[in-house]
Amino acid sequence: MKDRTNTLVVINIGIDSYRENIIFMREDCNICKSEGFRALTRVVVHFKNRSIVATLNVVYSDIIHHHEGGLSKEAMKRLDVKEGDIISISHLKHINSLSKLRGKMYDKELNDNDFKSIITDIVDGRYSNIELAAFISVCSGNNLSMKEISGLTKAMIASGKKIQWHNKIILDKHCVGGLPGNRTTPIIVSIVAHAGLTIPKTSSRAITSPAGTADAMETMAPVNLSIEQIKQVVGKENGCIVWGGAVKLSPADDILISVEKSLDMDSVGLMIASVLSKKSAAGATHVLIDIPVGETAKVRSSEFAKSLQNQFETVAKMIGLKLKIVVTDGSQPVGRGIGPALEAMDVLAVLKNQKTAPKNLKERAILLAGSLLELSGKYATGVGIKMAREILESGKAWKKFQAICESQGGLTIPKFAKLKYDVLSESVGTVTRIDNRKLARLAKLAGAPRSPLSGILFLAPLKKKVKKGQVLFTVYAETKGELEYALDYMKTNNPIITIE
Amino acid sequence: MKDRTNTLVVINIGIDSYRENIIFMREDCNICKSEGFRALTRVVVHFKNRSIVATLNVVYSDIIHHHEGGLSKEAMKRLDVKEGDIISISHLKHINSLSKLRGKMYDKELNDNDFKSIITDIVDGRYSNIELAAFISVCSGNNLSMKEISGLTKAMIASGKKIQWHNKIILDKHCVGGLPGNRTTPIIVSIVAHAGLTIPKTSSRAITSPAGTADAMETMAPVNLSIEQIKQVVGKENGCIVWGGAVKLSPADDILISVEKSLDMDSVGLMIASVLSKKSAAGATHVLIDIPVGETAKVRSSEFAKSLQNQFETVAKMIGLKLKIVVTDGSQPVGRGIGPALEAMDVLAVLKNQKTAPKNLKERAILLAGSLLELSGKYATGVGIKMAREILESGKAWKKFQAICESQGGLTIPKFAKLKYDVLSESVGTVTRIDNRKLARLAKLAGAPRSPLSGILFLAPLKKKVKKGQVLFTVYAETKGELEYALDYMKTNNPIITIE
Repeated sequence: MKDRTNTLVVINIGIDSYRENIIFMREDCNICKSEGFRALTRVVVHFKNRSIVATLNVVYSDIIHHHEGGLSKEAMKRLDVKEGDIISISHLKHINSLSKLRGKMYDKELNDNDFKSIITDIVDGRYSNIELAAFISVCSGNNLSMKEISGLTKAMIASGKKIQWHNKIILDKHCVGGLPGNRTTPIIVSIVAHAGLTIPKTSSRAITSPAGTADAMETMAPVNLSIEQIKQVVGKENGCIVWGGAVKLSPADDILISVEKSLDMDSVGLMIASVLSKKSAAGATHVLIDIPVGETAKVRSSEFAKSLQNQFETVAKMIGLKLKIVVTDGSQPVGRGIGPALEAMDVLAVLKNQKTAPKNLKERAILLAGSLLELSGKYATGVGIKMAREILESGKAWKKFQAICESQGGLTIPKFAKLKYDVLSESVGTVTRIDNRKLARLAKLAGAPRSPLSGILFLAPLKKKVKKGQVLFTVYAETKGELEYALDYMKTNNPIITIE
Repeated sequence: MKDRTNTLVVINIGIDSYRENIIFMREDCNICKSEGFRALTRVVVHFKNRSIVATLNVVYSDIIHHHEGGLSKEAMKRLDVKEGDIISISHLKHINSLSKLRGKMYDKELNDNDFKSIITDIVDGRYSNIELAAFISVCSGNNLSMKEISGLTKAMIASGKKIQWHNKIILDKHCVGGLPGNRTTPIIVSIVAHAGLTIPKTSSRAITSPAGTADAMETMAPVNLSIEQIKQVVGKENGCIVWGGAVKLSPADDILISVEKSLDMDSVGLMIASVLSKKSAAGATHVLIDIPVGETAKVRSSEFAKSLQNQFETVAKMIGLKLKIVVTDGSQPVGRGIGPALEAMDVLAVLKNQKTAPKNLKERAILLAGSLLELSGKYATGVGIKMAREILESGKAWKKFQAICESQGGLTIPKFAKLKYDVLSESVGTVTRIDNRKLARLAKLAGAPRSPLSGILFLAPLKKKVKKGQVLFTVYAETKGELEYALDYMKTNNPIITIE
C-alpha cells in the first residue's frame, strides 16, 4: 500500500453504475501494465485505512489522464474520497466465501458460518454483480433447506442495525406480494396503533411489483426516517409506516434485492430470510404473514401456500419469533389502483369511510388487523376482528393515520398522472379471468413505481358484467414514451381480462 | 426509431467493459428524463437496420455532452458505428427466454426450444452479465437432466458455424481438465496425423486453469486460424492444433465461458455441452474423452468419473457422435511445467525424445493416441497403442509436429519468464500428497495464462525422496507484483506439497 508505483489521483468520473464499485484506469497506465490488470479484473482500492473492492473498466481515451484513476459514484461514496485524493491499488486476494458459494452449486449445504461470511462479504461490497447474481441463483427456487434459510436469516440480521424497544410486545405484518393493489398496511397500522399496541412498520419498496408499501406511503408522507425519528413517531403514535431500507436494518437484503430486481426474479429462501430478518431487526416479537393465493398471484396453489407456511413457521421458531399465517384470496387485484399513488387513493378512501371505497380492501384490512390484535394476546379469538371494524368505521383509524403522517413529516394527498388511456371492453359479457401478472407488468411499463403517479385504475373485477365500450381499466403515465410502451405490450399480450 | 427526440450522436468513450455492451448517457439528457431510464436500465440501441441491447450507465459529468451517447468498445464493435454516427434509443421489450430461465429456477425442465431461444438471445448479446451469471448458476452442479444437456448442446451447435469435411472419419479428443500440466494434445495430434487419420483439433483457452491447450500451443505456433486456414493445414498435414474460439464454432460457449471464468466456476452440464458442441461443430465423428481422476483433480472420485462417463455417452448418442472414455490417473501433475510456455517445453521434450522428457506425459500421450487409432476402427485393440509408441519414438511425430507448426505460421521455441523463485523443502522425507488445486491457483497468481511465460516448474512428484533445502518447485513470473502475490498466497495456504 505504501508503494508509490501503485498510486493514482482520484478523478470523479461521474458515472453511476448503480451498486457496483467501478474503477476506470488507462490501458497504458503503469499499474495495469505491471500488475497485468485487464477489463473486469477485480482489484482492491485503498485510501487511508479504508479499502473497497472494485471492478476494473479499462479506458482507451483521454477521459482519464496518466496517473489518474476514475471512480464510479458508488465507489467514491464507499471509499469516502474526493477528487485529488491519492488512492493505491492492489490485487484482490482470494475471497473465501466464494468457495462456499461454489460448493453450494454442487449441492453442499451451507452452514451458519458460511452464510455469515458470504453476507459479510456482500455487505462490505466484495461481491461483483456477477457474483451476486450467482448467489441469488443458487438460493433460488427451493434450493435452500430450512436450516440454510435460518442461517441466511441470522446472517442478515447480524449484518445491520437492530432496533430495541421497551415494550414486550412489538407487532409487525407482511404480505407475500404478487397481488396488485393489495395495500392494506397503512390501514392495519392505523387500526392497531389506535388499539394501543405497538407496530413500528418498516416496509420495502417494490422488488418486481409495480409498487411496494413504502412507494405507496411515500405519495402521502415522508418514509425515509432515521431510527431516532421512527422511535419518536412510534413513541407518540404507537405506529409508523416507513421505508425499511433507509434505516439499514438488513443492508445485505437491500443489496441482494437490487440484483433480484434486475433479474426480475424471486426466491423462496431469500424471500423468507428477507422478510424475517427485517422483522427481527426492527425488533418485532409477533408477526402476521398474509399469503394471497390465486392462479396468477405469486402463490398460485394452496399446496405452495402450505409449504410456504410450513417454512415460515419453522424458520420463525428457529430465530425466536411468534408467527401467524393468514391465507387470503389472491384471484384478483385488491382495490382499484395499481401503482403507488393510485393505491394510496384506495387507502385514503377506505380510511375516510367513503362510499366509493373498495370493499375488498376494507374487509381484508379488517381481517388482518383483527388477526394481529388477537395474535398479540390482548384480544380473544373473534373479538379482535370486531374491534378492528369498530376502529375503522368510527373514523378513529383515519384520525390515527393523519396523526402518524403528521408525525412522519406531513400528510399530502396524491394526484393522478398527466397522461391516461382508457382500455375499453370489445364485447358484452362477464369478467371470468384476470391475469394479475400481465396487469402488474403493464403498470410497470407505464412507469410504476419509478413514476409514482403512473399505473392502472382497474374497474373490472371478477364476475362483473360489462357492456361493449365500457372502460375495463385506465392506464396512467407521466411520459408519452412510457404510455406507448405499455399500450404496445397490451397489443401483443392479450387477453389480460377475459370476458365471456 | 424515427423519432428525432430519441437520437444521440455517438461518442467513442473508449471504455472496455469486456463482453457487456454499455451505453453512457447524461443524467439530464432528454431521453433519460422522458423515458425514465436509470442506471442499469437495459435499453435497445439502433443504428441503420442493426440494433443491440446495452446496459445504461448514467453520467453526471461532462465526459459526455448534451445530445451525445457514449458507447463501450464492445458496443461500438457490435453495432458497427463510428464517432458522429446518429443512434436512437428505445425501451427493451420483454426478453422471452428469460422467463424460461426463471422457470428453471423453480425446477421446470427446459426443452430443446427453450435452450434454442436462450442461446440465440445470448449470442445476440441480449443478456446482461447478471443474466448470464444466473443462467450459468441454474445450469451448475448437477441441475441439468440428460435431455437438457442434449438440448443445450444442440442449441450451442446451431448458434455458430460448422466445419464440413470430405473424409468419413474425423477424430477429436478432449481432456476433462483439473490436472496441471496435462498437455498431451500436441503429441497426440502429431502421432494420429502421421498415422494418416484426420484430426482437426480445435482447443480452448484456460477457463479456470493456469493454461489451456490453445494457450500452450500459442507459445509454439499461431493458433488464431480461420476455418479456411484450418482446412488448408489439415488438408496438407491431416491435423492441426488451433484455438476454437477464433473460428466461432460455438460462440455461445465463448460468451458463457467468459462469465464462468469471472465466477471461477465449472458446471457439469455446461461442460458436457461445451465440449460436445465444439466437437460436433468442428465436424468430429469419433471423440475420445480423457478423464483424469484424483483427490485434487477436477474429478475426484471414480464414482463421479462413472457418472460423467454415463452422461457423456448418453448425450453423445443423442447428438450422433461415437465416443470413448479413458479414465486416467489424476493424482498429480503431468510433466513438470504448469503454465503455457512451461507446459510447451515438456511437450517439445517428449516429441524430441529427450532423455529428460517427463515419462508420465509421454506414456499418457501414447495411451490416448493409441486409443484414438483404435476408436477409428483402422487398428485392432492393442495394435493402436504399439503403433503410437513406434511413431513417437522413431521421431516421426516430432517431424509431423514441426510440419503442422510450419503450416500454421511457423514454429517458435518458448523461453522462461524474467523472474523466478525456488521453493525449497523444509524437511527430509517422501512426497506423499500434492494439492493440485493450490498448485494451479499459485500458477495463476504468478500470471498464467495471461502472461504465457509465467507459471510453475514442478519437481516433486509423488513418492519422490527429498532432502532439506532441495527445490520442490520454481515459481516463474513476469512482474514483481505477480510474484509477490503468488508467494503471499503460499504463506497462508500450506501445505501444497506434503512431505513425510
